[in-house]
Amino acid sequence: MAKVLTSKKENYSQWYNDLVVKADLAESSAVRGCMVIKPYGYAIWENMQAELDRMFKETGHVNAYFPLFIPKSFFSKEADHVDGFAKECAVVTHYRLKNDENGNGVVVDPDAKLEEELIVRPTSETIIWNTYKNWIQSYRDLPILCNQWANVVRWEMRTRMFLRTAEFLWQEGHTAHATKQEALEETERMINVYSKFAQEYMALPVIMGAKSDEERFAGALETFTIEALMQDGKALQSGTSHFLGQNFAKAFDVKFANKEGKEDFVWATSWGVSTRLMGALIMAHSDDKGLVLPPRLAPHQVVIVPIYKGEEQLNTIREKVDVIINELKALGVRVKFDDRDNQRPGWKFAEYELKGVPVRLAIGARDLENGTIEVARRDNMSKETKEIDGISQYIADLLEEIQSSIFKKALDFRTEKTTKVDTYEEFKEVLKNKGGFILAHWDGTTETELKIKNETKATIRCIPFDQPEEDGICIYSGKPSKKRVLFALAY
Amino acid sequence: MAKVLTSKKENYSQWYNDLVVKADLAESSAVRGCMVIKPYGYAIWENMQAELDRMFKETGHVNAYFPLFIPKSFFSKEADHVDGFAKECAVVTHYRLKNDENGNGVVVDPDAKLEEELIVRPTSETIIWNTYKNWIQSYRDLPILCNQWANVVRWEMRTRMFLRTAEFLWQEGHTAHATKQEALEETERMINVYSKFAQEYMALPVIMGAKSDEERFAGALETFTIEALMQDGKALQSGTSHFLGQNFAKAFDVKFANKEGKEDFVWATSWGVSTRLMGALIMAHSDDKGLVLPPRLAPHQVVIVPIYKGEEQLNTIREKVDVIINELKALGVRVKFDDRDNQRPGWKFAEYELKGVPVRLAIGARDLENGTIEVARRDNMSKETKEIDGISQYIADLLEEIQSSIFKKALDFRTEKTTKVDTYEEFKEVLKNKGGFILAHWDGTTETELKIKNETKATIRCIPFDQPEEDGICIYSGKPSKKRVLFALAY
Repeated sequence: MAKVLTSKKENYSQWYNDLVVKADLAESSAVRGCMVIKPYGYAIWENMQAELDRMFKETGHVNAYFPLFIPKSFFSKEADHVDGFAKECAVVTHYRLKNDENGNGVVVDPDAKLEEELIVRPTSETIIWNTYKNWIQSYRDLPILCNQWANVVRWEMRTRMFLRTAEFLWQEGHTAHATKQEALEETERMINVYSKFAQEYMALPVIMGAKSDEERFAGALETFTIEALMQDGKALQSGTSHFLGQNFAKAFDVKFANKEGKEDFVWATSWGVSTRLMGALIMAHSDDKGLVLPPRLAPHQVVIVPIYKGEEQLNTIREKVDVIINELKALGVRVKFDDRDNQRPGWKFAEYELKGVPVRLAIGARDLENGTIEVARRDNMSKETKEIDGISQYIADLLEEIQSSIFKKALDFRTEKTTKVDTYEEFKEVLKNKGGFILAHWDGTTETELKIKNETKATIRCIPFDQPEEDGICIYSGKPSKKRVLFALAY
Repeated sequence: MAKVLTSKKENYSQWYNDLVVKADLAESSAVRGCMVIKPYGYAIWENMQAELDRMFKETGHVNAYFPLFIPKSFFSKEADHVDGFAKECAVVTHYRLKNDENGNGVVVDPDAKLEEELIVRPTSETIIWNTYKNWIQSYRDLPILCNQWANVVRWEMRTRMFLRTAEFLWQEGHTAHATKQEALEETERMINVYSKFAQEYMALPVIMGAKSDEERFAGALETFTIEALMQDGKALQSGTSHFLGQNFAKAFDVKFANKEGKEDFVWATSWGVSTRLMGALIMAHSDDKGLVLPPRLAPHQVVIVPIYKGEEQLNTIREKVDVIINELKALGVRVKFDDRDNQRPGWKFAEYELKGVPVRLAIGARDLENGTIEVARRDNMSKETKEIDGISQYIADLLEEIQSSIFKKALDFRTEKTTKVDTYEEFKEVLKNKGGFILAHWDGTTETELKIKNETKATIRCIPFDQPEEDGICIYSGKPSKKRVLFALAY
């Protein structure tokens, strides 16, 4: 098989685009900025959804569904929020088409203009808090712990599949609490859920922290984030959890009677991850041969390819393989047997490497004689011949080993690509020649942050939770600083 | 607890609306025609989704995701299709808001007008077939068996929660085949899946059949349907499967090379069920006390209510109940223990009756002495006292018994409400005084169908698959007919 991907080194961005399309994950559509998520890509997303949904329910959340459309006037009720989203939203103005009098197909019917325009939701705080108003009277109605799986639209001008699309799929949690303390705890709980998911399922090491004022969600008092490092040394924000204070409760007049019978505004959080995680998954682990999928999210964890001449040999192989398949399924392993006769084994090997199937088993005539089977790992491309006896448990264990191994590789890469710097010169030098995460002192002002951003394009990804207090001086202003923050170029 | 619902007899329509709201299933939103699906309602929908998704995958289908928006020009490509949907669609014309110069919040930015308007999908045949064009070259690429879980928008003027809303949730399967025969088989396979789901999970007896020309999907050559009967004697179309012939392949120029190397247009089907099924589920089984849910779809299948005085007694009860809960969970039963101390048992009983929990267990001081527990069925409101010993298996079996019993009740009702008539006078008389399904001879013309519809509002729900061939004469025109068709007033 000819090389199907541009190499990462040659052109990282093209490598990513090639990979998304060639591995059948997604493709662009006829609608500007909107993608089609193809079955193989969607199957990975479904695995992500299933795990996240389980984790949300374990932490006491329930799912619900709110309208796709938001009345325009709702937008203006929270000042920061409208500034954040009004500039890139899809606006519905009419509710009917009609046949063109000149015979040019259909046109918008001017008589079917809406009294108030509707915005296709870019996020649902406003419509949800307008709804919560009716659900909350007293502290007994709290907390409300709702999540929604939905599509949202943000009219981005420069789009890239999974990373930044006009329409994307996500989940958005929206919770309502009686106290500030509870809401803050929820905000933390959910960024921890995201971190756990990223690390344990996506094999993606992430740094948890708080966003600076400048990078905070439109309408939030505090935004917590998980930041991951991609193989090109750029950061990818992978999930956020917002403490909204009483902003939306005030904007939509949502009050409750507390235990003492006193009225107060409700405290809020919101938190979300999106199909952007697919971009993180792809970019963090894959190589020039294609995807590398962590076993816990791979649609097929194991593929078995028979190498045979003639139907009789295939039948003998099939008998052996059927036993292995049943054993693997009993162990909870997702396994596929590819006995298509219109493609050669070599073609299939390349195909499954491209698609990132973690383990490939191959079995041929000699294996039948020897009672063996070939086991190939996708992550490190190693191969070994194993006895068929006991192979299923071996594979099940191997999948766990691969999961850890992919995580470790990403973690080692990040460690290698994380640099502490103490001067602005050094900062610019590392940014230019090495990339990655940079831990540096900052004076805490938006002014300095923006100057650094304008001069270098680097942004503060977060103020990491796990950075120790440490006396230092801001690399830019020389003013005192108590903690290093995380800088990087970012997607 | 005071009566919370209007009685069915008094005002069926009001009873339905009351029920939807009071049982926490859904409520109307600030956006015209769009509803909020509340957590309890959404949990039922999630159970439906899980079963349907499993059935789709078992029959070889995979999920994918296609854009929310459809370019206006795509609509015009299939003539019947545009006629069917253009009159009720949400049209996106702009992609930005801006601050009003007069300080009145935000307004649509006239400089951000789209070159071509986008339609919020009312159904996705056009955008999907435009995509399939790139996926299909040869017979080896076929069949394509995709399903999508999505929201769609149809700008209905008169809306009712779950039954007819501007936005609704659904799944839409879109398949592509090399032969007419295969596509027809798929169309039948999926209406059978829907029928099985309705009967085995929703406990809803349905009649399968083909739609008349008049009632067919816009763009289909054949529409198969499942029709259910509600308690007010009106029919509810609950799922449809369409044989689209080569219409969409021709509209979007989707050709393939067959085994002989000859080019041909691809054959298509599409099929869908929506949150309308929630309406069917509610209306088919519920009563004046509230919802009656079939156990297989109930979020909680069993609720346990302790009846106690003081913390000590509650603790003793809790010990007993913990054992039962663990046993029930091990048997796969979804069980909830309601030990809230701020509501009395009687209030809880009424609440769970309203919410349709299939089995309620109550345990109090006397039960503790006697080693017994009270078992109450929601469907027939019967109560019995049982030994705690062996109760879990008894409950698991009882849930199955309730599932069958609810189905049988609905089937008996339908049988009683299905009438064969041979004259138009009789037809009108039954329609007026009895309602329900009417099996009558029809001459097969749209003209007759529309005349009957105009005069009586009754429509042909379907030409049932299981009606025997039988010589007769059309009740309206007196012309010969070979088969009775199914008439009813319908939602």
